[in-house]
Amino acid sequence: MTLRFEHETLGQRVRFASGSAREAVAAEVELLGATRAMVIASRSETGQAERITAGLPVALVHDDVVMHVPVPVAERARAAAAEHDVDLLISVGGGSTTGLAKAVALTTGLPIVAVPTTYAGSEATNVWGLTEGAKKTTGVDARVLPRAIVYDASLMLTLPVGLSVASGLNALAHCVDSMWAPRTDPIDAALAGEGIRTLAAGLPRVVDDPSGLEGREEALYGAYLAAVAFASAGSGLHHKICHVLGGRYDLPHAPTHAVVLPHVLALNAPAAPEADERIARAFGTETGLEGLEALRARLDAPRALRDLGFEEDQIPDAVEAILPSVPESNPARVTPESLERLLRGAWEGADPR
Amino acid sequence: MTLRFEHETLGQRVRFASGSAREAVAAEVELLGATRAMVIASRSETGQAERITAGLPVALVHDDVVMHVPVPVAERARAAAAEHDVDLLISVGGGSTTGLAKAVALTTGLPIVAVPTTYAGSEATNVWGLTEGAKKTTGVDARVLPRAIVYDASLMLTLPVGLSVASGLNALAHCVDSMWAPRTDPIDAALAGEGIRTLAAGLPRVVDDPSGLEGREEALYGAYLAAVAFASAGSGLHHKICHVLGGRYDLPHAPTHAVVLPHVLALNAPAAPEADERIARAFGTETGLEGLEALRARLDAPRALRDLGFEEDQIPDAVEAILPSVPESNPARVTPESLERLLRGAWEGADPR
Repeated sequence: MTLRFEHETLGQRVRFASGSAREAVAAEVELLGATRAMVIASRSETGQAERITAGLPVALVHDDVVMHVPVPVAERARAAAAEHDVDLLISVGGGSTTGLAKAVALTTGLPIVAVPTTYAGSEATNVWGLTEGAKKTTGVDARVLPRAIVYDASLMLTLPVGLSVASGLNALAHCVDSMWAPRTDPIDAALAGEGIRTLAAGLPRVVDDPSGLEGREEALYGAYLAAVAFASAGSGLHHKICHVLGGRYDLPHAPTHAVVLPHVLALNAPAAPEADERIARAFGTETGLEGLEALRARLDAPRALRDLGFEEDQIPDAVEAILPSVPESNPARVTPESLERLLRGAWEGADPR
Repeated sequence: MTLRFEHETLGQRVRFASGSAREAVAAEVELLGATRAMVIASRSETGQAERITAGLPVALVHDDVVMHVPVPVAERARAAAAEHDVDLLISVGGGSTTGLAKAVALTTGLPIVAVPTTYAGSEATNVWGLTEGAKKTTGVDARVLPRAIVYDASLMLTLPVGLSVASGLNALAHCVDSMWAPRTDPIDAALAGEGIRTLAAGLPRVVDDPSGLEGREEALYGAYLAAVAFASAGSGLHHKICHVLGGRYDLPHAPTHAVVLPHVLALNAPAAPEADERIARAFGTETGLEGLEALRARLDAPRALRDLGFEEDQIPDAVEAILPSVPESNPARVTPESLERLLRGAWEGADPR
């Protein structure tokens, strides 16, 4: 990897505080000197949000949260913030909740303290998204980066094991793909490597002991690192493939990632020995693929796209749809033939080695 | 390592641009929209600074730089900045030059673009320092963190090999000590591990090919990571020991670090298996000490404090002086006896294993 690069480190405080979200949020409110907080949480999570912010100077609890942040929903939240003259946004929830807080911050400049309850990762990026009808607009703005994140793994104990593993494998895909994504650099690669190491340790623990905190903490920490690395490095080949498969054939997001990842790694590893060495070192195995396959076996991850609803005769169409979006930075040359082989292998669940 | 921690990531853009400092600084001036820059460089480096900022909107070049940033020197620089109504500080130089830019930023809030010409690392921290007579005051302030760093390894080709290696080993000590320093966390440890990996690769290359850029780049990148990790994690046992040895017996800074480090690692490794595993993984060896000793041998690093002017009969005094500052976080319990053994080993240059 060349040592000529540009890296933007996003300034943010992060607190890992299992079982202590309340104390950690209170510490942030004090540090930021806030006196009128707007708590944002979806209806099903307002109870939890109220417990976490009990005793704090909360001006209002706003529960009008909708997936993908439609513009009218953002406008209503901005109006509520103005009406109550708030000086801090506290979001408690998943990606849509964090996203709504970002939409308010985008126009008001209000600081955000994010308390994630899923592994979505939006809290670690300066990317915002809004939808108008079916059209999604995204952008990058320093104002939407939460000032602080409070990670409390105990908030995730209710997340079913299957969903946790799927999200964790999704985060793992972010880490692996960060190794050769268009804007990757050695700092991204180092953080992604640490993410792989942590997820490989944590996910089996989540499976073995779903009510234990240790595995959940590791999965959460790994997902955070994945978000940081991915936000900086951008989408690599793996994400381009999964994006087409998900959007065009309506395949389920997380299982698709889990199936495709080893095939992308098998394609790229020979052309990216340094990346593969990093991945292998993170897994503690000889090669990256060996580590990934062992973890997938341990987690009983899905193996074949045909089990997810993808049809063999859709492969040629998928090849055509994916080819134009293959990043120039991809280490292995991607031809119609190599892409077809990759998709066929993923479809039938072949051993990627 | 527990996953309950708080980590402050400092937001900063960093450009590694060997041979292209000028283009990289120009890009930053444009990004920041600056129209009246104050270039700060010591007298011996103004020629270089003028080459790097040629063609840019420079309002003045300020060369009144003095070691440790005495208050009157800071006052003069602040007055010059005000008089010329500048909107950006560009520092080109080592720790004292960066330090002067920070002193101006502290009271004016002006952004800094730092172009380091040594491995000092100050450019990656929000710590400022001023001296008044013999008294040094330091503090932490978000305003003094440079907005951007431009690292150009070609500016360091004139640094003698011996000095490069000594600085590199000093950076390595920052990385190793970060593994158990008082405020360390997994993010610091991951960045420190990447620093060790990079320094272990780069320093032998600097020795083998002093005029080559590759080794210099790696050493510089490693020193940057060391600064980031150390600023966040704080001083561990190693730095407390070296601080006393340097201040009380006037031992040379960098060689003292090089001699003491393996003895601290030998003391702490058995009590900190996870840290040792990280260090070993970074070196690619079985144990951390094995990797460190191989690197020291390769670099022909100094082995004994007695060769640096430390006397055997000063050991008891040193033990007494060091003990009160041993961090509570240190993994191994430090007793007068264990500390005396450590210092005696370092004094005679014993094999730390």
